[in-house]
Amino acid sequence: MAGNSYGKIFRITTFGESHGNALGVVIDGCPSRLQFDFDLMQAELNRRKPGQSEIVSQRKEDENFEILSGLFEGKTTGAPLTIIIRNTDQRTEDYDNLKNIFRPSHADYTYEKKYGIRDYRGGGRQSARETVSRVMAGAVAKMILNQENISIQAFVSQVHDIKTVKNYTELDLSIAEKNAVRCPDEKIAEQMIELIQNVKNEGDSVGGVVTCVCKNVPVGLGEPVFDKLHAELGKAILSINACKGFEIGSGFKSVEMTGSQHNDKFEIDSKNSNIQTATNFSGGVQGGISNGMDIFFNAAFKPPSTIKLKQLSVSDSEQVIEYIPEGRHDPCVVSRAVPIVEAMTAIVLVDFYLLNKMYK
Amino acid sequence: MAGNSYGKIFRITTFGESHGNALGVVIDGCPSRLQFDFDLMQAELNRRKPGQSEIVSQRKEDENFEILSGLFEGKTTGAPLTIIIRNTDQRTEDYDNLKNIFRPSHADYTYEKKYGIRDYRGGGRQSARETVSRVMAGAVAKMILNQENISIQAFVSQVHDIKTVKNYTELDLSIAEKNAVRCPDEKIAEQMIELIQNVKNEGDSVGGVVTCVCKNVPVGLGEPVFDKLHAELGKAILSINACKGFEIGSGFKSVEMTGSQHNDKFEIDSKNSNIQTATNFSGGVQGGISNGMDIFFNAAFKPPSTIKLKQLSVSDSEQVIEYIPEGRHDPCVVSRAVPIVEAMTAIVLVDFYLLNKMYK
Amino acid sequence: MAGNSYGKIFRITTFGESHGNALGVVIDGCPSRLQFDFDLMQAELNRRKPGQSEIVSQRKEDENFEILSGLFEGKTTGAPLTIIIRNTDQRTEDYDNLKNIFRPSHADYTYEKKYGIRDYRGGGRQSARETVSRVMAGAVAKMILNQENISIQAFVSQVHDIKTVKNYTELDLSIAEKNAVRCPDEKIAEQMIELIQNVKNEGDSVGGVVTCVCKNVPVGLGEPVFDKLHAELGKAILSINACKGFEIGSGFKSVEMTGSQHNDKFEIDSKNSNIQTATNFSGGVQGGISNGMDIFFNAAFKPPSTIKLKQLSVSDSEQVIEYIPEGRHDPCVVSRAVPIVEAMTAIVLVDFYLLNKMYK
Amino acid sequence: MAGNSYGKIFRITTFGESHGNALGVVIDGCPSRLQFDFDLMQAELNRRKPGQSEIVSQRKEDENFEILSGLFEGKTTGAPLTIIIRNTDQRTEDYDNLKNIFRPSHADYTYEKKYGIRDYRGGGRQSARETVSRVMAGAVAKMILNQENISIQAFVSQVHDIKTVKNYTELDLSIAEKNAVRCPDEKIAEQMIELIQNVKNEGDSVGGVVTCVCKNVPVGLGEPVFDKLHAELGKAILSINACKGFEIGSGFKSVEMTGSQHNDKFEIDSKNSNIQTATNFSGGVQGGISNGMDIFFNAAFKPPSTIKLKQLSVSDSEQVIEYIPEGRHDPCVVSRAVPIVEAMTAIVLVDFYLLNKMYK
Repeated sequence: MAGNSYGKIFRITTFGESHGNALGVVIDGCPSRLQFDFDLMQAELNRRKPGQSEIVSQRKEDENFEILSGLFEGKTTGAPLTIIIRNTDQRTEDYDNLKNIFRPSHADYTYEKKYGIRDYRGGGRQSARETVSRVMAGAVAKMILNQENISIQAFVSQVHDIKTVKNYTELDLSIAEKNAVRCPDEKIAEQMIELIQNVKNEGDSVGGVVTCVCKNVPVGLGEPVFDKLHAELGKAILSINACKGFEIGSGFKSVEMTGSQHNDKFEIDSKNSNIQTATNFSGGVQGGISNGMDIFFNAAFKPPSTIKLKQLSVSDSEQVIEYIPEGRHDPCVVSRAVPIVEAMTAIVLVDFYLLNKMYK
Repeated sequence: MAGNSYGKIFRITTFGESHGNALGVVIDGCPSRLQFDFDLMQAELNRRKPGQSEIVSQRKEDENFEILSGLFEGKTTGAPLTIIIRNTDQRTEDYDNLKNIFRPSHADYTYEKKYGIRDYRGGGRQSARETVSRVMAGAVAKMILNQENISIQAFVSQVHDIKTVKNYTELDLSIAEKNAVRCPDEKIAEQMIELIQNVKNEGDSVGGVVTCVCKNVPVGLGEPVFDKLHAELGKAILSINACKGFEIGSGFKSVEMTGSQHNDKFEIDSKNSNIQTATNFSGGVQGGISNGMDIFFNAAFKPPSTIKLKQLSVSDSEQVIEYIPEGRHDPCVVSRAVPIVEAMTAIVLVDFYLLNKMYK
Repeated sequence: MAGNSYGKIFRITTFGESHGNALGVVIDGCPSRLQFDFDLMQAELNRRKPGQSEIVSQRKEDENFEILSGLFEGKTTGAPLTIIIRNTDQRTEDYDNLKNIFRPSHADYTYEKKYGIRDYRGGGRQSARETVSRVMAGAVAKMILNQENISIQAFVSQVHDIKTVKNYTELDLSIAEKNAVRCPDEKIAEQMIELIQNVKNEGDSVGGVVTCVCKNVPVGLGEPVFDKLHAELGKAILSINACKGFEIGSGFKSVEMTGSQHNDKFEIDSKNSNIQTATNFSGGVQGGISNGMDIFFNAAFKPPSTIKLKQLSVSDSEQVIEYIPEGRHDPCVVSRAVPIVEAMTAIVLVDFYLLNKMYK
Repeated sequence: MAGNSYGKIFRITTFGESHGNALGVVIDGCPSRLQFDFDLMQAELNRRKPGQSEIVSQRKEDENFEILSGLFEGKTTGAPLTIIIRNTDQRTEDYDNLKNIFRPSHADYTYEKKYGIRDYRGGGRQSARETVSRVMAGAVAKMILNQENISIQAFVSQVHDIKTVKNYTELDLSIAEKNAVRCPDEKIAEQMIELIQNVKNEGDSVGGVVTCVCKNVPVGLGEPVFDKLHAELGKAILSINACKGFEIGSGFKSVEMTGSQHNDKFEIDSKNSNIQTATNFSGGVQGGISNGMDIFFNAAFKPPSTIKLKQLSVSDSEQVIEYIPEGRHDPCVVSRAVPIVEAMTAIVLVDFYLLNKMYK
């Protein structure tokens, strides 16, 4: 109820605050006999880690994970899998001046009003540091999806007004991981990086779009009516800090199309005689259920609220005050959001995949 | 699990097929002693009803609801409230020719693959007829919200490439209900209606955008981390048939903004000394929790898949076939989607409202 | 949350009041392509029906069920299955004199305090009439279990101080359905019936025990830690009106045993080389998971609260008053509880059976 | 789904194995601003701890808990509260000889069949060591209940054939904590201790009954129909290792009573004009909802399966083998079960207490 769990069958519960003792996740419902891939786990944590490049936060997080339960001789047992990361680089003093301030467009005010108490150190539970737990759960989800050859790749398709022009099918997505901004078009990546550098130098921040593509998803995942696959993906993605919008397939662009343009004609794949669609405006989901085509969607991320500029705000004693945040921050979240988007997507897909086994 | 329920505390379960005996909803967790507003219920059903104007489906649905349980002397008792509507104008024969066809961009194919059986009559459970149950549940939710003076109003802000230009705060939203397309700008409404008429005459269909505004929502609704208010709204809205995108507040437009532009400065309301924000790019939600400002969002609806044009498709025996759908359909769903968007929004808000009582 | 739903995968939601329009159940998560067995459904309803013999309530209920949704050409489709029964023999006037009384050991008082309103007609939602919905859901569960050759049979093993002496394995359980009290030992059944008749003549009521045996349950059903198979069975059975106790296998008798007596030795079945246990004090469940042996348990039912004797009680205006209930009632519930116990057991087993498919 | 979570609002998820790195619990939905009572937590852990007396297991567990998240300046914040205990005295070698054995009446066989893998070290997840997590969650629940003056006290009322004869209302329950077996009748306690010592010396084990009494529970807790208060208590208690039976109020004894004996007459409390019942056969619950009277119930615990006697069993390669367990064990679990029964009861009561706030 209180919002820290996700999933039906593959059910994750995350915990931990930005400057608390540890962050972690319990996964209940992870299939047994899964070989735990320690390298994959560490690789995913490294992808999310701050300090990877000049365009992200310089907070140091070693991200050494520890498995508290659920593993036996390197394999899952069906018991809850618990993984934690201890916080180390906790410069709590950076946040002392924020103790009584409601920072603009942060959750200080709403947390204070909802709970009557607030761990102001680095934003406490509202901090994007929480997403490290999602990435850990997502890594486990990916271990399961890998067995089924289901792949998920996200990348940055827009930063401010700079965007990729080619459709994802025309791009080599593996390039995305080779540059700091995680855009698969190298030239556009350079422009994005330059823009973020400039914004950073100004002490400001900027928004962006993450696009995610899932391949080899079997037909049948997703539950009508309310738990449509894209609706659940939408919730999962919108729950990521700073995400303001989600669109599947043709998304908002579908509005300006006609049915005769937009309908995805069915056809027989000449190679394997499978049914497929000639176009994929549906984004791989029809009636809330995967149809075997690529699933792809966009997620809009707002400019981070933490900027290094003087701002007026209000204190918890309702006084107008002026403040300049200290501490480390991201001028643009999208490059670090990429592994988080993938993680949430993996969690949703695994969950529906396991749920769908009941129909066999 | 199987996706026909929604909500945690105010928990609805919908049932029924397009051409089955009845559609309905069970609401478990409705507060007791609620005076049932029969007029409101009928009014909401009438708003969703086809045949209201020339630009929507001409299927006749009388929408006479019957309450099976949960009411005693006009008030709710805390027991499950069950409301049904019997199907009457079931021209099943219209659909006989669709028995073996996978209609493009419908859910025929995915349902068949998932369940191994398919009620093809009017789309069965995948039909938008299902949304009548949502509207009934939403009407009950509105009865509760009315007591708290929380209002929800949705309207059409775009049809194909015709869109409102003014911000919702500059429009008289009550005008929306006075024209067939439910757009609060009368001149633009006329253009939209004309466009839909033309599309209809061509046998084609077109997409649109519904905007929804919620006023007087108290501070504190929504549960971090995964059940953020806007994430849950996103899921609820994306679960509506034909919805392809959702954005809260500044949404996708936030991408091209900087933090210094986008941050909503807190200030003290001079009238009542309340804390409020000077701008509302957040759309009334910060950190996943309502902050007391207007909540507003956009939902993108694709052009309906049913068009009156000859199309190629594939049969369930994997033969390519040509077909022209018969039966009645909507050339554009957005005007009828307005009450459905409101209903889902009401259901989400009531649910979080009740859940939030635990924090008192 | 509000308690009218049960099950995780095979999820039932029941609704309806004793003297409302209809009672019913929605089953979400019923596997598709299940051939609906109309005869089985009617037979189960008839087993629960009052008026079957002189030792039960004489209320007339025709129990003509109607399927509102989820069936297509006689088969389930994976959509919610909704089944209702309209109330017919509603002698509401019988209950007018109870409008302001809190009947002893009924739920009048607690409902009034919890909900602030109460449908006093026949007990409203608290009435055992509610169990008709459970029996309908249980009948569907049995249709699924029948496919797997899993059988469930309950019977009456005790009425007041008259009890069966033989172990269930020594009795022909099919005899139970042949007498009014549903006891598989004919001689004891006669004594029980005579006792109930006497109690009835005195206007009083009496308690009893229902024993339930499940055969051919596969190994592996049940989820540790909290959702142990017998814990979930316990909840399901204890939720039946008038049930005061539950014990699995050796139950309370295990207390007076030693470990060396109680341990169920494993052995190899000489016929099929399967692992089995020599004794079955565990009652077919070890560590919360079915082990392939018979599952059996006892449920204690208190004497019904409605008796035809003058009693003192308190009115809702806190006055002491004298009252004699009118209307029809059961002097002993156990014979009619038999199909209800089976229904709840079937619902639990199907739910765990479907859930367990994920481990395949 | 996978059974490691409990509760709706106050939702706990436990994790950890007997000989893994750590055991712990995440509590999601704990009210904010709760002053964490460190002493209460340690005291409850000490009550459950082995090695407290000669009649329990001599395993050494220091039970030093660590709070990983959810606390800020000594108070809960509304974020998930995570508490762990590291395992220290892990004599894994004790269990090497059990690697391939299915111990009688343990869960080795069922776990192996369900999961295809088994952490055999000390029983892994099936070990009663898991209950340390329940006790931690229960201690937090008690902190909340203490604020409402709701008390829970369990005690041992029977060991083998030695039982208390007085009703709990005639006993000074505080005496229970003063002897090793936790029985509030000192003379009977002595007999019980002697019996357990004898059984221990023989290498055998013995069963017992724990009785639990809850005072000052407000009227209105519990949700009809399926989530009746006593049904949920039943599930919670039956989920404790070795529990075979549960009865509320008059329980199985009600069977031999008549309605005229069993009905709890309502009356007006002369002191405070409250409505109360003259007797309390209902055990404080009517129609599944608390009525303000004491809630009391019994739980039957079987003799522990681990005994120091030679037994025949079957190996996982289906060979009959002889074995004598090594390691430490409890000859009778009931004295250590007392705090666990209280913990589960507290968790259920808090959950319904928070849920009931919605009705205000």
